[in-house]
Formats: sequence, C-alpha cells, structure tokens
Amino acid sequence: MTTKTDAVTVLGLGEMGSAIARVFLERGYHTTIWNRTASKAAPLVEAGATAAPTAAEAVAASPLVVVCLLDGAAVDGVLSSIADTVQGKVLVNVTSGSPGQARANDRWAHEHGARYVDGKIMGDPPYVGTPNARFLFSGTAFGEHEEALRELGAVSYHGEEPGAAAVEFLAHVAMGYELLLGFLHTLKLVQAEGADVAGFAERFAASLTAYQPLLTSIAKAVENREYPPDLGPLDVQVALMDDLIGHRESAGVEAVRMRETKELMTRRIAEGHGGQGFSSVFELLS
Amino acid sequence: MTTKTDAVTVLGLGEMGSAIARVFLERGYHTTIWNRTASKAAPLVEAGATAAPTAAEAVAASPLVVVCLLDGAAVDGVLSSIADTVQGKVLVNVTSGSPGQARANDRWAHEHGARYVDGKIMGDPPYVGTPNARFLFSGTAFGEHEEALRELGAVSYHGEEPGAAAVEFLAHVAMGYELLLGFLHTLKLVQAEGADVAGFAERFAASLTAYQPLLTSIAKAVENREYPPDLGPLDVQVALMDDLIGHRESAGVEAVRMRETKELMTRRIAEGHGGQGFSSVFELLS
Repeated sequence: MTTKTDAVTVLGLGEMGSAIARVFLERGYHTTIWNRTASKAAPLVEAGATAAPTAAEAVAASPLVVVCLLDGAAVDGVLSSIADTVQGKVLVNVTSGSPGQARANDRWAHEHGARYVDGKIMGDPPYVGTPNARFLFSGTAFGEHEEALRELGAVSYHGEEPGAAAVEFLAHVAMGYELLLGFLHTLKLVQAEGADVAGFAERFAASLTAYQPLLTSIAKAVENREYPPDLGPLDVQVALMDDLIGHRESAGVEAVRMRETKELMTRRIAEGHGGQGFSSVFELLS
Repeated sequence: MTTKTDAVTVLGLGEMGSAIARVFLERGYHTTIWNRTASKAAPLVEAGATAAPTAAEAVAASPLVVVCLLDGAAVDGVLSSIADTVQGKVLVNVTSGSPGQARANDRWAHEHGARYVDGKIMGDPPYVGTPNARFLFSGTAFGEHEEALRELGAVSYHGEEPGAAAVEFLAHVAMGYELLLGFLHTLKLVQAEGADVAGFAERFAASLTAYQPLLTSIAKAVENREYPPDLGPLDVQVALMDDLIGHRESAGVEAVRMRETKELMTRRIAEGHGGQGFSSVFELLS
C-alpha cells in the first residue's frame, strides 16, 4: 500500500536531519521541522519549511514523521513528548542505534497507535538525496511511504522485523573495522620489514575483488553446513599458521587473529574435519 | 642481465613442483628433475624430463635450479646435499617459509658461490603457467633468468632484499585470514539475529570495491603520518563502538576487534587527536 505522500515532518536538525529536510523540500514535499535548539531551523525556513514550536505540533502536521537525533536517549526523550499526537502516524527513525532499540521503539509506537519504521544511514549528509547515501529500512509500515523514503538515496528494505536494518548496518560497520584494523596491523608489519607500504596497500586493494566470490561461497557453506575446501583443506592451510604467527611476533606485531585462526583450525582437524575448508571453523564459533 | 635460459632443474616433485616442471617441459626447456621419492618422477620422464639420481647431480645439469619442497626443514636438508655442486648456479626457492628463512638461504647460497632468489606462490598447482597463479620473487639474481621464471604465471618482483617476497606473501595471507575470520564471526551475528546470511554476504562482498580507494588512502596517511578524517573524525566514530560491542555481546558473538578499536580510538582522542581519522590509531600500534 503506497500512498502519495505530500507532507513530511523532520524531528532533529543536526547535519543529517537538516540534509534530509532539505531533500524533502527540494523535491516538493510540504516539510515541517522541529529541533530542540530552534535556531537550527532558520536556513530551512528560509528555503520554505515550516518550523513548529514543539515536537508534538510538528508531528501533528504530517502523516510521515522522520526522526533523526543524536542517539537513542534523545529519541526516548522526544518520543515521550509526542505520545499524545503520534496516533495514526508513521514514525521513521533513522537515528543510530541497536536492533534492540529499534524493537523497543516499534513496541512503543504500537502502544501509541502509530506504526514504526527503523532506518540506518551509510553515507555523509552532503550525499543525502543521491545514490551515494545508502538508507536501510525495516518494519511493516515501510511500503506506505516508500516513494517519499526513496527520495533520500539508495534505499534497501530488509524486511518486517523492525531490528533488521540495524542488524544489517552494525554487521557492515563491524566488517569495516575488522578489515581496517587488521589492515593497520599488517601495514605495521610491512613497515617494520622496511617494505613498500603504499605498494602493498595497492596490491591488496586490487586483490579484494577476488574475495567477492569467496565470501558468497563461504556464506553458502555456512548456511548449508557443508564445507568444501575453499582455500584448500585445513590440513594444508594450517601448515602456514606458524609462519604467520612467528613472522608477526618477530616483527613485534600483534597476532590475535592469526593465533585464533590456528587454534580453530587445529581443533577442527582434531575433530576429524581436516579435509574441509576454512569456512568449517564456523562450527566452533560460540 | 637476462640470458636465454634453455635448461632448468626442479628439485621436489610434489603437486606444485610437478606442475612447475611440467610447464618448463611444455615450453621447451631441457628439464632435469629430482625427488626424494623417485617414483614421483615417472610421469614427467614420460613427458620428456631427465630424472637425476641425486639432488647434487640434478643441480649440476642446469644454470637455473628451482626448489619446491614441503617446508624449510626439507629445504635445509636438500641444500646441505647440494653444497658441492651449487657453485655458479641460481637457486630459486619457492617453498613456503618466512622472510628470515629466505635471508638465511641467501647467505648460504653466497657462502657456496651461488646466487639466490626467493619465491612465493599464490594459487593452486593446476594454474601454474597461467595468469591465475601468482609468483612473487625477490633477490638480486631475479633478472638473470627472468624470462624463464615468467613462464610460471603472473610474476611480480619485489626487490633485491631476499625476504621481500615472503613479507609480501605473508602480509597478503594474513589479511585474508583477518578478513575471513572477522567475516565468519559477523555471519554468526547475522545468523543469531535470524537475518539473511546469504543476502548480507552478497551485499558486503559488493561493498568491497568501496574499500579499495580507502585502503590506499589509509596507507598514504600512515606513510605521511598525516591522518585526515577518513571515516569521519574519531570523536564521531567512537560513538558507534558501544552499539557494536553491546550488540555482539547481546548475541553471544565475540567482540575482540571491536573492543580493541574502541580502546585505540579512546586513547587517541584522549591524546587530543579526536579530529583525525581512523588511520591515526596506527600511531598507537606497538
């Protein structure tokens, strides 16, 4: 059920909230705005937005209410102030937060006669309204204002479970830090060896495309619990681990993941699965 | 100084050594082979290779000697058996091993009047002789038989320092395990949340290309010790870490790298660098 939305309210006018309000304005939506510090509204009012004196009045103005605040605590504060005007509205909360917060917000909305959509944003405020800002949404009410939400950037919908967008977001962000912190430690190793840091980085970056089919095949192995010898059988792979660990230690570089990898491989081999691939250590993760 | 090489010796006829010998044979090189277990030589002899009864006699037959054995201990054993015939030869050792082993082999070669090239192989035996097998080489004598070595696959030369190929190799392999083990833990998180494992994997794989310019810019930041706010300033990035850690803990998934990332960011901010990017935590790595 998609309806043509012509009015939207934006609560929170930090950099991201302001960018969202500006895109709605530019695309012709009647846009009502509110911010705890009212002065933030001035440039948007000049561009045609209507500033409401309270969050409750802002919510009353539109069927679609986008909430973009600093954190979950700020969301809790604003939700309690709009409890009396939120009935019948669709609340779309794009504030950072956990899946648990999204689920709690969803329950709160239902208790107050509203519907809830959770959103997470990957990209910086200047890119809102372009395909370089990715918006992840989840929640049953997504379809109702889908057209309006798709104004905001590259939109993906992750299902009815309200926490799903946050799960997807946190999983992507975690992978980013996994990759980048591992990379910094490895640059330390390359630098300690007096080798060419920039050259290594370029070559490793170029090799990333080779990991794309590997990652999807590992996910398939995990889902099916069938583990072909992806990088070769564990019996063969494990032979390299002592070189990897010893090398890092000799250069004074940490080896947390290398030791963990060796330990997992060794346990898996001891359990009789030395012919399976790396993906099979998934079975040992708590 | 590149000379046209017409004869090559291969010591070690495991799967990889046999594949190397076969490529040389097919490309018209007079190929002498040796293996501790002589029976492994039979199919290559049938294809035109000359089997030598001892490693020392095999070495005597060619100016270029490729060594491809199980591990460093096996290399040490074979080197001591060829000490009397190795003078004037170029030894190219493509056995797995550390930069330290490569440097020790290089010293041994010089002490015995030979020259040394270290090699590391990324790719499986069936791909030897094609661009899908990557050969990394280092050492001053590389140029002398470069044309012959380039028969083996996609060849890159990492400089005169004999350990450089092993450094490059171990750094790539370590990054592979960093990425893949972090990925398995994150799949555990996605699965624990009941979300779509295969879909997440596909979307994360697709996002890898966005990391390519980021990795090269991080390496540049590390080299110049100037740290622009890559993923945003640390002051902003750190706000997400509690969500990441809390989410993983609530789902029973380990959070080693997330806790380390938070701790490094927090220290860096405390030292007055909260406006810098993630790459600046490099300064805190031991």
